[in-house]
Amino acid sequence: MKLYDYPPAPNPRRINIFVAEKGIEIPRETVDLGKQEQLTDTYRSKNPACDVPMLELDDGTCISQIRGIARYLEEAYPQTPLLGQTPTEKGRVEMWDHLAFMNGMLAIAEVLRNTSKGFINRAMVGPHDYPQSPELAERGKARIAHFFEDFDQQLAKHDYIAGDFYSMADITTLVTCDFARWIKVNIPESCTHLLAWHEKVSARPAVKANP
Amino acid sequence: MKLYDYPPAPNPRRINIFVAEKGIEIPRETVDLGKQEQLTDTYRSKNPACDVPMLELDDGTCISQIRGIARYLEEAYPQTPLLGQTPTEKGRVEMWDHLAFMNGMLAIAEVLRNTSKGFINRAMVGPHDYPQSPELAERGKARIAHFFEDFDQQLAKHDYIAGDFYSMADITTLVTCDFARWIKVNIPESCTHLLAWHEKVSARPAVKANP
Repeated sequence: MKLYDYPPAPNPRRINIFVAEKGIEIPRETVDLGKQEQLTDTYRSKNPACDVPMLELDDGTCISQIRGIARYLEEAYPQTPLLGQTPTEKGRVEMWDHLAFMNGMLAIAEVLRNTSKGFINRAMVGPHDYPQSPELAERGKARIAHFFEDFDQQLAKHDYIAGDFYSMADITTLVTCDFARWIKVNIPESCTHLLAWHEKVSARPAVKANP
Repeated sequence: MKLYDYPPAPNPRRINIFVAEKGIEIPRETVDLGKQEQLTDTYRSKNPACDVPMLELDDGTCISQIRGIARYLEEAYPQTPLLGQTPTEKGRVEMWDHLAFMNGMLAIAEVLRNTSKGFINRAMVGPHDYPQSPELAERGKARIAHFFEDFDQQLAKHDYIAGDFYSMADITTLVTCDFARWIKVNIPESCTHLLAWHEKVSARPAVKANP
């Protein structure tokens, strides 16, 4: 098993924290996104989606997308469950992980990739080139504000994102909050529940080991 | 258990086919998206994400988002597995369901919601209003073309989307292909593998029962 990784980027960080929480040792190979190594023929032949992270199994099977990698690892290494334990918990983790990804992670990516000079004509992850859109960057900024407020409200009622247990939904939300700093946005001071939760989960050893 | 449903819309259709494939009987309550019933205080109190479908369990727990509902049902009703059986299959289903949703379903929604008069100021699903973006509609059109080509290539190598077994990834891809007709786009004739697969999965009783 080998994990194709690029630790500085937020999506690889989600899986790196997930793996550290579970205590699994996986050999890594760096795919340098700064050098666009995800677009080489060699990598593309393993992962046509041309994104990182990607997990290559010993039989050659390649699994991309955070959802795919996390689900494989959860099923193959059930210790320290991070995707819930009961059907209800499992459903709630998927629900909240999806909301954090869609309304937080993607919103920040919309701002970053549609404004940064480093992403000209590369406004989306993946093999295809798309031009930057100032309209989408503006929408992303508005969405991030709503993301913080909505998740603060959830944490007013629960200790963790998907309920009263730590899960992948916390990892995605934490990485999203930290990713926002890339576009110079911080959790608003009014989001007291989100701030307290952020301090708590940031202190976990698996998170500190993957800054 | 109650499923809040709106059969004409594509995301509810994904769950309706999923439920029919598993042979589960679930009482439905219609939330008329045409009348914006998803934004009423009553519905919002159960589902702050203000989207449909949503599953309410007998203990009052509410699970929204297709990923959340499908995972709950798969775990609670394991018969006729649709999210894979081995760790590898489970990982591949999540991977391909995510790619179909992100690169297909969302691309079509970007076109529809950013061009239709029915979605003025409602360019995104959910509780928050966002203005329409002509730039995003244009990007969506380009993305749909890539979606068809990329999935055709996958089906050149496999009988079904996630491998050689029928799964939720097929349901999402099928609903996406049919959703494209809403914006007057059809599977290109050059995508022969995708066309043959579409004909095969469209003939399934669970699909025919949820047109």
